[in-house]
Amino acid sequence: MIATNGYAVDSPEDRFHPFRFERREPAANDVAIAILYCGVCHSDLHTARGEWGGTRYPCVPGHEIVGEVTAVGESVTRFAPGELVGVGCMVDSCQRCGACAEGLEQYCENGMTGTYNGPTQDTGDNTYGGYSDRIVVREEFVCKVRHDREQLAAVGPLLCAGITTWSPLRHWNVGPGKKVGVAGIGGLGHMGIKLARALGAHVVAFTTSPGKKDDALALGAHEVVVSREKGEMKAHASSFDLILNTVAAPHNLDSYLALLKRDGAMVMVGVPAEPHPSPAVVHLIMKRRTLAGSLIGGIPETQEMLDFCAEHGIVADIEMIAMRDIDAAYDRMLKSDVKYRFVIDMATIAEG
Amino acid sequence: MIATNGYAVDSPEDRFHPFRFERREPAANDVAIAILYCGVCHSDLHTARGEWGGTRYPCVPGHEIVGEVTAVGESVTRFAPGELVGVGCMVDSCQRCGACAEGLEQYCENGMTGTYNGPTQDTGDNTYGGYSDRIVVREEFVCKVRHDREQLAAVGPLLCAGITTWSPLRHWNVGPGKKVGVAGIGGLGHMGIKLARALGAHVVAFTTSPGKKDDALALGAHEVVVSREKGEMKAHASSFDLILNTVAAPHNLDSYLALLKRDGAMVMVGVPAEPHPSPAVVHLIMKRRTLAGSLIGGIPETQEMLDFCAEHGIVADIEMIAMRDIDAAYDRMLKSDVKYRFVIDMATIAEG
Repeated sequence: MIATNGYAVDSPEDRFHPFRFERREPAANDVAIAILYCGVCHSDLHTARGEWGGTRYPCVPGHEIVGEVTAVGESVTRFAPGELVGVGCMVDSCQRCGACAEGLEQYCENGMTGTYNGPTQDTGDNTYGGYSDRIVVREEFVCKVRHDREQLAAVGPLLCAGITTWSPLRHWNVGPGKKVGVAGIGGLGHMGIKLARALGAHVVAFTTSPGKKDDALALGAHEVVVSREKGEMKAHASSFDLILNTVAAPHNLDSYLALLKRDGAMVMVGVPAEPHPSPAVVHLIMKRRTLAGSLIGGIPETQEMLDFCAEHGIVADIEMIAMRDIDAAYDRMLKSDVKYRFVIDMATIAEG
Repeated sequence: MIATNGYAVDSPEDRFHPFRFERREPAANDVAIAILYCGVCHSDLHTARGEWGGTRYPCVPGHEIVGEVTAVGESVTRFAPGELVGVGCMVDSCQRCGACAEGLEQYCENGMTGTYNGPTQDTGDNTYGGYSDRIVVREEFVCKVRHDREQLAAVGPLLCAGITTWSPLRHWNVGPGKKVGVAGIGGLGHMGIKLARALGAHVVAFTTSPGKKDDALALGAHEVVVSREKGEMKAHASSFDLILNTVAAPHNLDSYLALLKRDGAMVMVGVPAEPHPSPAVVHLIMKRRTLAGSLIGGIPETQEMLDFCAEHGIVADIEMIAMRDIDAAYDRMLKSDVKYRFVIDMATIAEG
């Protein structure tokens, strides 16, 4: 077994504390990884604090993992020790259903295994995520990182924030000639802007904060619209092919739906704690618009996204923190006080 | 000018009464039609009673029109006197925008002209619909009816109820191997069942009324689910490619969304007076489902649908009424007391 340093909470009210546990020895198809950095996703907070229900404690969150391969199982041929790799939101799935066959393991019909909060495919045990210095993952769920080593920390958030925006951009065929909106400029939204721009689309960022205009332009948006300004919104009526809505707080969907052209789609990637005000069906009917959802992304498209980002020099905008500062980081996240993702430097985990 | 007998209301509270008016003489590209039958759509009621706002009085509803060509303008080559034809929800559009170019005149970017309640493209005048014995329509908005003449009355509802269900069935690629749900067994729903069945899909009808089970099977459904029975619904979880939702009353959309398989779509074709309870975004996200809308259908697909129905012997199930009984028919419609569409025998219009 592999001795592992982690950080865990034991209950919804707990604060994070050091937690030592063991990872399995690599099986034939496993890759053992020394975790170097792990991004901090809002889902980590929801799960640690039991806000979605179903949290199994102790809870070791973290699913924006980058690190270095330390050992591989005997049948692993795609990875070798010393290589840089990433692990995202999933570490396993049934590998035999239609979704898995299509490389869409996130929609596994038998239930994928989350990188944290399990359950594992065999025993149903809990899984422990990337707030730790070691992880062992079956090779099908490990992605190659082709970025330069000095970019590695900022690659971490690509594994969740990046793929969660990449997958719908690709599924809804974003590219040159398409007009794409990105609502919300946070962890997900800032990646959505970068990726849509790099894919060749005309990108419009939506924000409730006029103060974020310059930031959005710096991220790559061609235009920025303050969503509370009715006149600014109206100027874009019926013009978008796709709006990627990363806003998890309940908000008026109609004002965005009205901006979609015929056959346009708004894709929701955030789950609000309370429902959004009900969208008016008439906005969907009058131009055959669609309101859709999208969940992270499959492993093949995660690798595609990582390769695209390496090629285009795309990483997340991050603020590095020490492991012991995770509770403070959560508090700042709740105030949207981060540009745009915290990343834990795992070298700090043994400092206690 | 062509003297025309119609039935109109003059205000939201009015009852229908005879209304004589004049239709234009056919211009070069016009088709003059003697209306033989006109279906009664729920939209007629909403408009006549001013429930959607914007009704212009006097209001002569009716957009499920079938009749016989009596004269054609000099440049009309596709139609000749004596032929059976149909006119649906539109009588004009700009004919130069992208939507019109694609044959999707219902989404005309400059606004299509409704068969009733206008406005006309040139003067913005009101249009008078099919509760009348004559109509003059530009040839681009006239469809050929290839059914047998004795089927003509039951062809009328194809022009709205038929195309409104046909268009989404085709757009979302319904055919053999697809599982399609039809929610609501009324004017639209009964056509949705017939058309989806004839297109080769496996058809499941949803109804709140156990008493409608046999009717739905008779219409062509392979299975019927009582939507209030949670167990019956659950048995179909994540299994539908498409659900055509014809229910205009506010209802729980989540219980239907949960029945869609990955990438499945629920298409709304009814506009409720009050919004539906807000759908949970998580149902959309977890299987990349879509909630969409669809508006009637374009003229080319209307002709396609009419030809398909003629070939497959499909007509609406109707109850024929006299023109003078239209108010009573509205009252019965409000009680869903019709299987499944009233059609006015226009020979009765002069009876007063």
